[in-house]
Amino acid sequence: MFFKVKTSEEVFEILKGFGPAGEESVSLENALGRVLSKDIISPENLPGFYRTSMDGYAVRAKDTFGASESLPALLDVAGEVVMGQVPTITVGSGQAVNISTGGMLPDGSDGVVMVEYCHVLDEKTIEVSRAISPLENVIQPDDDFKVGSIVLGRGHMLRPQDLGLMAGLGIQHASVYKRPRVAIISTGDEVIPIDKRPESGQVRDINSYTLSAFCRQAGAEPSILGLCGDNFEQLRDMVEKGLRKADTVWISGGSSVGTRDLTLKIFESFDNMELLVHGISISPGKPTIIARIGSRAIFGLPGHTASAMVVAEVFLSPFLSRLSGEGDPQKKSNYQVEAQLSRNIESASGREDYIRVRLTRIGETLRAEPIFGKSALISTLVEADGLLKVERNTEGLYEGEKVKIMVFRRVQ
Amino acid sequence: MFFKVKTSEEVFEILKGFGPAGEESVSLENALGRVLSKDIISPENLPGFYRTSMDGYAVRAKDTFGASESLPALLDVAGEVVMGQVPTITVGSGQAVNISTGGMLPDGSDGVVMVEYCHVLDEKTIEVSRAISPLENVIQPDDDFKVGSIVLGRGHMLRPQDLGLMAGLGIQHASVYKRPRVAIISTGDEVIPIDKRPESGQVRDINSYTLSAFCRQAGAEPSILGLCGDNFEQLRDMVEKGLRKADTVWISGGSSVGTRDLTLKIFESFDNMELLVHGISISPGKPTIIARIGSRAIFGLPGHTASAMVVAEVFLSPFLSRLSGEGDPQKKSNYQVEAQLSRNIESASGREDYIRVRLTRIGETLRAEPIFGKSALISTLVEADGLLKVERNTEGLYEGEKVKIMVFRRVQ
Repeated sequence: MFFKVKTSEEVFEILKGFGPAGEESVSLENALGRVLSKDIISPENLPGFYRTSMDGYAVRAKDTFGASESLPALLDVAGEVVMGQVPTITVGSGQAVNISTGGMLPDGSDGVVMVEYCHVLDEKTIEVSRAISPLENVIQPDDDFKVGSIVLGRGHMLRPQDLGLMAGLGIQHASVYKRPRVAIISTGDEVIPIDKRPESGQVRDINSYTLSAFCRQAGAEPSILGLCGDNFEQLRDMVEKGLRKADTVWISGGSSVGTRDLTLKIFESFDNMELLVHGISISPGKPTIIARIGSRAIFGLPGHTASAMVVAEVFLSPFLSRLSGEGDPQKKSNYQVEAQLSRNIESASGREDYIRVRLTRIGETLRAEPIFGKSALISTLVEADGLLKVERNTEGLYEGEKVKIMVFRRVQ
Repeated sequence: MFFKVKTSEEVFEILKGFGPAGEESVSLENALGRVLSKDIISPENLPGFYRTSMDGYAVRAKDTFGASESLPALLDVAGEVVMGQVPTITVGSGQAVNISTGGMLPDGSDGVVMVEYCHVLDEKTIEVSRAISPLENVIQPDDDFKVGSIVLGRGHMLRPQDLGLMAGLGIQHASVYKRPRVAIISTGDEVIPIDKRPESGQVRDINSYTLSAFCRQAGAEPSILGLCGDNFEQLRDMVEKGLRKADTVWISGGSSVGTRDLTLKIFESFDNMELLVHGISISPGKPTIIARIGSRAIFGLPGHTASAMVVAEVFLSPFLSRLSGEGDPQKKSNYQVEAQLSRNIESASGREDYIRVRLTRIGETLRAEPIFGKSALISTLVEADGLLKVERNTEGLYEGEKVKIMVFRRVQ
């Protein structure tokens, strides 16, 4: 109506104009979930020595050539490899040395026969019933990682196995991007703090809590600046404070048109403001405003909790990934599940709809049941497991149709 | 070979014998990701008053009956609702009161005409071009939540929107299950601390770091007890310490058969030990031991990092969910993505295989590319995005086949 609205694709493009805020060094213990700001180069070969991947006997492979169940090779047992030590024995022709998984191959040997194929005749002799090729059951010194190679790239988010790799290489610190700091402001004359009892006409502040939890879940550092009535000076002061202390400022509007207008007026009062988005052709979430002030993105979000959270899931999630330094957040996130729609859905053409859905597992199939209800109702979100996107040019979806659901991220 | 192995289904059943360790109260700010140990009952109606969900005019619905573009209804504007306050105006017959989204309905009115359908003739008069029914664009006092109803149930993990709901109802604390405490021990004579330079034959401790990060990611509290050589007394002392301070103890074996035997011997040295699992028919991960000592589960995990992590993803993830108090972790977790297999895979029948796969998005399709390599190589895990389960009775999968991938949980 009043807005020159943008499509979600246009908004995604615009948000690509923002990047990470800086780098810092963190210890291995604190690196989980952080995003690398520099490649990690392997300082050494891993494992660094010839190592067996099986329990068995280290041998010269050619001594087993031709061995079979009916015609086993006879080998002399020359000793045993002690774990964690350089073997002192050398394996000669016709000899075998007992070795446990992870043990270092003794000189002279070039392969390991699995214990399953060795029959112990006496303390000194085994029968080998299967031939091995050279390097069979052997991990070479640089099989896991080669010295000088990039083992983890800039923009990669560190998972448990990545920390394991760093531990294995003795890397105890990593250069990572700083966590994005988000300043959160709730506005609206009708909004009161959660420890107050609302009079009729008043509601408690929900958005400060949903949005800050959303930030923490995305690895960002939220800072709740507090509540603000529909007052130009007060709100402008809070926005200024937010711009000083955070990398992005999120104002969740009181839901009234007056508050929305006020937010826009405050954006416009900054000299270096560039209005990027004034309305998005999605539902819910249409009255979203995005501006750039200096290098910072500032968002005016809808006041209705469910609308604000849809905007958060769809746009702020990849935006925070970008601020976190993730290489290609679009590719990484948005893993979706496929589900079967429980009923017909109508949708206005020319607008992208995000329908809250409940997921139920019926045997192997997930069933997506739309939850209808005004976006002012937080119950619609609480009952939902994810969002179903109905494309702009779709007029509706049919019962039984296979659809993709953006599942709400699990927290923890 | 030596093991009387169990199937994964049997292991899941066995792990259902363990539950949460206790309850505590947390503040709203600290409740994200925690699991409720008691139902939350709504102490009041939300929003608690008649509230409009649109900008427009509060009217008596029947005054609009029959109104249309060609025959609009004329109404007198009697004033405006101030946000956050109880309106002082009463709406009489033929009257309309200006109201913003979220405002409280004035007495006398029973519906709201959206501003789009109101044409302002002068300060005192509007034309309404569409009829509304009673309660149209109105949220009733208990539309979101009714006083006395269960709004969030025991066993529910709190997400941002759930905290928003609590904020909306003024609930500032929640009873949650305690986070599971996990004691982690790494064993093996060849394993050294990560700040030491390995000699040939030695490797740095990887599993303490992967497993503790895995715990943190799952919302548990890991405690790294440290390294232990293949020494009965020392390892038994560490296990005892773990049983005292944690809810479960995880020993990641040195990979050698000697260390595995030692772990079992230590389990057997506890009077109240019940051996639950001695080997699982999966690959990798077969040499996993699980026992109950008193009320605690104790795990002997394979030493190979990739094997240990597969066991963690498949079994320890739902186990930790259960310890965390989640109602039906199997249903909730294991959201999987569908992908297209990039090549044929062979698999031994009679054994469940977990193949590490890399996911690539090609347009709308995800492509799953198997990563082969010994499970002693952590690189196979670092390159992977998830696991492909090949069922026990499947002999292989074909290129192009649609498969389900258990995606590694995103951290944060």
